[in-house]
Amino acid sequence: MKNRNKILVIGSVALDSVETPFGQVSRALGGSATFFSAAARVFAPVSISAVVGKDFPIKYLRQMRRLNICLDDLKIVDGKTFHWKGYYGEDLNSAHTLKTELNVFKDFKPQLNEENRQTRYVFLANIDPEIQSYLLVQLENPSWVACDTMNFWIQHKKASLIGLLKKVTVFLCNEAEAKQLSEEKDLFRASRWLLGKGPKIVVVKKGEYGVACYTRRSQFMAPAYPVHKVMDPTGAGDSFAGGFLGYLARVGNLDDRAVRRGIVYGSILASYNVESFSLDRLARLTRPEIESRFKRFRQMTQFS
Amino acid sequence: MKNRNKILVIGSVALDSVETPFGQVSRALGGSATFFSAAARVFAPVSISAVVGKDFPIKYLRQMRRLNICLDDLKIVDGKTFHWKGYYGEDLNSAHTLKTELNVFKDFKPQLNEENRQTRYVFLANIDPEIQSYLLVQLENPSWVACDTMNFWIQHKKASLIGLLKKVTVFLCNEAEAKQLSEEKDLFRASRWLLGKGPKIVVVKKGEYGVACYTRRSQFMAPAYPVHKVMDPTGAGDSFAGGFLGYLARVGNLDDRAVRRGIVYGSILASYNVESFSLDRLARLTRPEIESRFKRFRQMTQFS
Repeated sequence: MKNRNKILVIGSVALDSVETPFGQVSRALGGSATFFSAAARVFAPVSISAVVGKDFPIKYLRQMRRLNICLDDLKIVDGKTFHWKGYYGEDLNSAHTLKTELNVFKDFKPQLNEENRQTRYVFLANIDPEIQSYLLVQLENPSWVACDTMNFWIQHKKASLIGLLKKVTVFLCNEAEAKQLSEEKDLFRASRWLLGKGPKIVVVKKGEYGVACYTRRSQFMAPAYPVHKVMDPTGAGDSFAGGFLGYLARVGNLDDRAVRRGIVYGSILASYNVESFSLDRLARLTRPEIESRFKRFRQMTQFS
Repeated sequence: MKNRNKILVIGSVALDSVETPFGQVSRALGGSATFFSAAARVFAPVSISAVVGKDFPIKYLRQMRRLNICLDDLKIVDGKTFHWKGYYGEDLNSAHTLKTELNVFKDFKPQLNEENRQTRYVFLANIDPEIQSYLLVQLENPSWVACDTMNFWIQHKKASLIGLLKKVTVFLCNEAEAKQLSEEKDLFRASRWLLGKGPKIVVVKKGEYGVACYTRRSQFMAPAYPVHKVMDPTGAGDSFAGGFLGYLARVGNLDDRAVRRGIVYGSILASYNVESFSLDRLARLTRPEIESRFKRFRQMTQFS
């Protein structure tokens, strides 16, 4: 039972061409499932369900395996890998997309192997809610299901997304998405609406302004861990989810204390991620570094 | 020595005509010194140095006196009172100014009486830094001086403002102003720059996203207290300053614990203020209500 705490993620494994004021990379390792896994793996074993093309560099497969990310359900098929090209301007808050080449990802139908079907913890990264549902029914008896989304699906597949929420335990989205989906202007009211659709925990990401977490009985607000040298914000939300849910998978419960600590860990993983392009920083991140920021986070937020 | 903890504020006492999506008021009691005092008075005696015209309604003088705000240095002169007219759109985050009639405030030269010259705690609300300096030299031996400003003064009287900072203990500004004044894009670096100019404590207000507080040795981040029914954001920054500095005047020290608690109290006073137009909510605010939000604030931000 060494994989009792394993967390399964379905999402994208992609090639990212990114330019920021501090540099650029071409066809670097990226994708929501990738950033999530690179963060979650510090707390729990991770397995990816995704698809790449035959052009996917073998060095990236090796890099992920070196991080102990299980790739048994990463399909390699004829065609080209999902490629995203974009840039960030001076403020680094919003990505400008230049190209989204879905390629093999367009026809992705996840098929879990026997072992992954038994995974207890699942993260449905931001993809078509119909594919998220398609994966979900393959799971035998998940303890909890976490789910992310984006404005595109809220706009185009709202009914599917709302249907999916019934089976979701932890719902993650950003501030604008929470308001868009609920059609509420106030975040607290938006959270009530979302909690009414199924999730027990709603986590709203506000980028550099931190995170708000809502349950029916409690609310937790955490600032973002301040980063003084953001190199590339790509993957911040997914590495947050990785730190947060990886920690929850490790401790094996969703009580208030665990959720709060998880959110702090998520913020810390995201803070490290944005200090480099691609997985560079996450790949060499150590537990003592994480614990050092955890301690510092406490110093920056607690009062007596 | 009943006034040992007294805090003196110089700023505006004004008439505000405000429209928000939730209502409107015409020539309501407003101004930076007014909102500050209405918040600070729950913790410490307050005295205002300001000027109004002969048109200033006597009922507003009575209202301020009922709140135990000392008006001995509120000058009533020939002419009309400072009048601000503006509105807030759906997002409530930024005020749109329709009219700024400075009137008697234009020629304001504060002259403190003997008692106010001995005040130990001073808040220089957002006015011309040359007038802030003019007041400051009248004080005999202040324990600390807090100062607010705005983009207009940074743009037009930057040298005066920077000169003033040498004598300032606590500097308050918003995020954009911190960056504008320091010419730094990163808030942490902006705070280092500001701390280098004199203040021991720099407090950066981020509106609905909370507050960051910097000293040379520590950093504290607090979310805004979430308000679900913002009626009118006018005076949020000044009522924050009132709660924050009023608390510091009450406890009589600037240690880290006091500053953190003060920031939380400031956020709470601001949260009550924005629930009504003018001073309506602050005027009937009680200590138990404040303590109840303090407790709730702790529940929403602390983790173990």
